[in-house]
Amino acid sequence: MQFPAVTLALPGWVGEFLGKTPAIYPSVEARMELVIELASRNVRQGTGGPFGAALFNLNDHSLLAPGVNLVVESNCAVAHAEMMAIMIGQAVLGSYDLGREGFPPFELVTSTEPCAMCFGAVPWSGVRSLVCGARLEDAEQAGFDEGSKPVDWDLSLRQRGIEVVRDVCRREAAAVLFSYAAVGGVLYNGRRGGPQ
Amino acid sequence: MQFPAVTLALPGWVGEFLGKTPAIYPSVEARMELVIELASRNVRQGTGGPFGAALFNLNDHSLLAPGVNLVVESNCAVAHAEMMAIMIGQAVLGSYDLGREGFPPFELVTSTEPCAMCFGAVPWSGVRSLVCGARLEDAEQAGFDEGSKPVDWDLSLRQRGIEVVRDVCRREAAAVLFSYAAVGGVLYNGRRGGPQ
Ligand SMILES: [Zn+2]
Ligand SMILES: [Zn+2]
Repeated sequence: MQFPAVTLALPGWVGEFLGKTPAIYPSVEARMELVIELASRNVRQGTGGPFGAALFNLNDHSLLAPGVNLVVESNCAVAHAEMMAIMIGQAVLGSYDLGREGFPPFELVTSTEPCAMCFGAVPWSGVRSLVCGARLEDAEQAGFDEGSKPVDWDLSLRQRGIEVVRDVCRREAAAVLFSYAAVGGVLYNGRRGGPQ
Repeated sequence: MQFPAVTLALPGWVGEFLGKTPAIYPSVEARMELVIELASRNVRQGTGGPFGAALFNLNDHSLLAPGVNLVVESNCAVAHAEMMAIMIGQAVLGSYDLGREGFPPFELVTSTEPCAMCFGAVPWSGVRSLVCGARLEDAEQAGFDEGSKPVDWDLSLRQRGIEVVRDVCRREAAAVLFSYAAVGGVLYNGRRGGPQ
């Protein structure tokens, strides 16, 4: 029996857009603005839901890997922005552990706080910190379902040595969700509601 | 800027092995035995950790997609057995929603209960039921870290209309974990401990 390989690739506009952006993102707000822009462009380009994420090298503040939500585009429920950034970053470095000895510390920046799946992926990825824009409540208000996370999910990451910073540019990040909902964007999903 | 596509492919032995197995798995124990065999062979073949999973069509009891843990092999922290089965099943059907109208009901069978990430992926996948072999305690006893799930994770799935069946062939499923640990298998991971 043969089973297909799974291939997940960013749409062409991502690389084109990132060819015109700064090489360095010194502040956490600059990093968040980039992922909010990815989320916003993903909607405008028609390649997916209003979610963006990226991995940054915290030593030199360079971008390691971007991610956008490609669930519908890729026919893959796993293809959330955070998962794409993690998988691409690990492919770039050829390591399943971004926290490997000898690597710089990496930060995952996401335009909306992670859903239950992406939350669960964070510790396995090896990132040292997680930065979130919009909150769960913003995503839910826009009609998205984030799944069931532990109530103290941020504490649980901190206990694993992963720093968590929330509400960075929250208003701008939430605005992308609300404008998607306002124009009737697809709230795709499996069983009900719509995941990221 | 260019970023690599992510390609996740099952090792060749999976298709070869499944070419010699039954076409139909009428009982839940038969389905679990297959995924335990996948877990066990994944270790013996040296392609990954002691975790297997598969999606089955609950109308005709056929296999839709297998999965094994390919984290180390693929340099991808996301490549848990359950995630592989979900992504491959969705690639086979060309749909990010296995619960789509017109599809038969699909069941995800996993040799060890899902970690936090895979738990979070279950509702997004569109499966109607989840069947687990070994328990969290078995995985932890073997040295694996399952991450932080909500305490009532199985209830949370049931509330989303997903049936959860646990402890199917638990002893046989746990034995694969224990024998992996006993021979000093890699407890790979990001921050600490080792995920599935
Ligand atoms: Zn997510
Ligand atoms: Zn898992």
